[in-house]
Amino acid sequence: MNILETAGYLRNLNNVLLLTHVRPDGDTIGSAAALCQALRDLGKTAHLLYNPEITATYAPYAAPYWGSDGFTPEHVISVDVAAPSLLPENAKRYADSIELAIDHHPSYSSFARHACVDATAAAAGEIVYGVIHALTPVTPAIALPLYVAISTDTGCFVYSNTTARTHRIAAALLEQVDVFAVNKALFRTKSKTRLAMESRMVADMELYDQDRVVIMQIPLSLRQEMHATEADIEELSSLAALVEGTDCGVTLRELKPGSIKISVRSGPRVDACAVCAKLGGGGHRAAAGALVEGTMADAKAAVLQAVAEVAEA
Amino acid sequence: MNILETAGYLRNLNNVLLLTHVRPDGDTIGSAAALCQALRDLGKTAHLLYNPEITATYAPYAAPYWGSDGFTPEHVISVDVAAPSLLPENAKRYADSIELAIDHHPSYSSFARHACVDATAAAAGEIVYGVIHALTPVTPAIALPLYVAISTDTGCFVYSNTTARTHRIAAALLEQVDVFAVNKALFRTKSKTRLAMESRMVADMELYDQDRVVIMQIPLSLRQEMHATEADIEELSSLAALVEGTDCGVTLRELKPGSIKISVRSGPRVDACAVCAKLGGGGHRAAAGALVEGTMADAKAAVLQAVAEVAEA
Repeated sequence: MNILETAGYLRNLNNVLLLTHVRPDGDTIGSAAALCQALRDLGKTAHLLYNPEITATYAPYAAPYWGSDGFTPEHVISVDVAAPSLLPENAKRYADSIELAIDHHPSYSSFARHACVDATAAAAGEIVYGVIHALTPVTPAIALPLYVAISTDTGCFVYSNTTARTHRIAAALLEQVDVFAVNKALFRTKSKTRLAMESRMVADMELYDQDRVVIMQIPLSLRQEMHATEADIEELSSLAALVEGTDCGVTLRELKPGSIKISVRSGPRVDACAVCAKLGGGGHRAAAGALVEGTMADAKAAVLQAVAEVAEA
Repeated sequence: MNILETAGYLRNLNNVLLLTHVRPDGDTIGSAAALCQALRDLGKTAHLLYNPEITATYAPYAAPYWGSDGFTPEHVISVDVAAPSLLPENAKRYADSIELAIDHHPSYSSFARHACVDATAAAAGEIVYGVIHALTPVTPAIALPLYVAISTDTGCFVYSNTTARTHRIAAALLEQVDVFAVNKALFRTKSKTRLAMESRMVADMELYDQDRVVIMQIPLSLRQEMHATEADIEELSSLAALVEGTDCGVTLRELKPGSIKISVRSGPRVDACAVCAKLGGGGHRAAAGALVEGTMADAKAAVLQAVAEVAEA
């Protein structure tokens, strides 16, 4: 369905439950919150299913919208979810009954009855903006979470997914809300712990493939040594993409012993999504991820092998 | 003069020399380059006066526009220059004959015969965009340096000076040019030397005033030890503004023995421009600078004193 069809479809629904993805980021939370507010502005009952992995960074945007246990939805919609495997545990029971998926991942797996998918959108928030714009005025309560969605998925308008449309939507949102505090908190603040972790990751980084591939590591021991919180670690995978001369930044994060989260940020030579697909993951061409079992050394060997197979010479 | 008056004024000029400011940044270079290209598109002769402090980062944008020694201008225009004292040495001879100043600094000192000044503009590039838009089509050759001007002065759309207008102009520019390479080079690349310098600055940072003021230092010795180039150090003053819990980030950089560049980045509690004005400098409310004589210890004492006098309790 296109934007207008999706808007028309939503206009006829009531008692809606919105689902977000595991390890929720600004896009899934901000987009779902804005859509929930818009549905409420239309007089409908709408909630977000509580996401148990919500971090302090994004919790304030979702807080007004979490549904109560007693809520029985008539319609279930997923936002920024590329595949049922990316639903949190408590959302899996809805996996077969999702009526509408709103998404921007090229790897969207066609699991919902209807879909509004645009892989050219920098964020799901761009699609949701269009849908809301066709339904109801974009109030400050809608504009703020949408700004969070779009700004976080573009690294504040710097990643290669940013387009003229992204900036046009941002202009419309800034007509409604002051984003100074959001920008400061999301993009211009690092805890002392985070700064110290970054220093260590830089000191310990390893270069491969004619110094074009950089690997940074966040072992559990580093996290424990620094008493780092989840918020201290959030988005640390963007650090590896900064190293001059490299065009493939890999971050290996030990979630628990034997379980490694691999994040890949890449330039045109390396398709990050293809690299991660070889490891059972997915994402976008310039930013993707996978979860592998084994030691940090296993994960390093696996991702280097995958990069070697995928990258252009 | 407003935008349309300025456009009308420029339409009647020929043989134009454009001046940029000392330690040239993306805004002064990008704005002047775009204006120069627009004047040439109108069939006029126009050049930039060579700026001897141009860095490798911005040199490519200015290179097509540097004037030859033989060029004798009929009209001299300054771009992003708040005061004659901010002209490079080789531009001082024009200080008394500047016909038009295009600027966005609140501290603009009314030195030119005519002025197009808008302190609400995030960058001089926003004003120049408006002027060019009224004169001639915004081609890719104009859009690229204007994007450099606006994106660098807003930290890529993250600083508090970013407005809806900023994003609207960015959208128009992105219709003309692909900014992937620019964003990568300006905002998503750090040399290994720079990363190492940042680590040291973080390790050595000092907190004052109930931990709300952070001071970072770049002594000459650090620069020499790391063999850092000017490009490695550019914009390092933004690092101090990131430290969680602080709202006044001060960077002291030893330019040469006895000469210290002070940069202040601040939140609402501290007027950075007022702080730097006490030290003989100036700038914007959230970002300002000053040059002081003395040791690093002298500069630290002076800036802490100035912050104490200016900051709200």
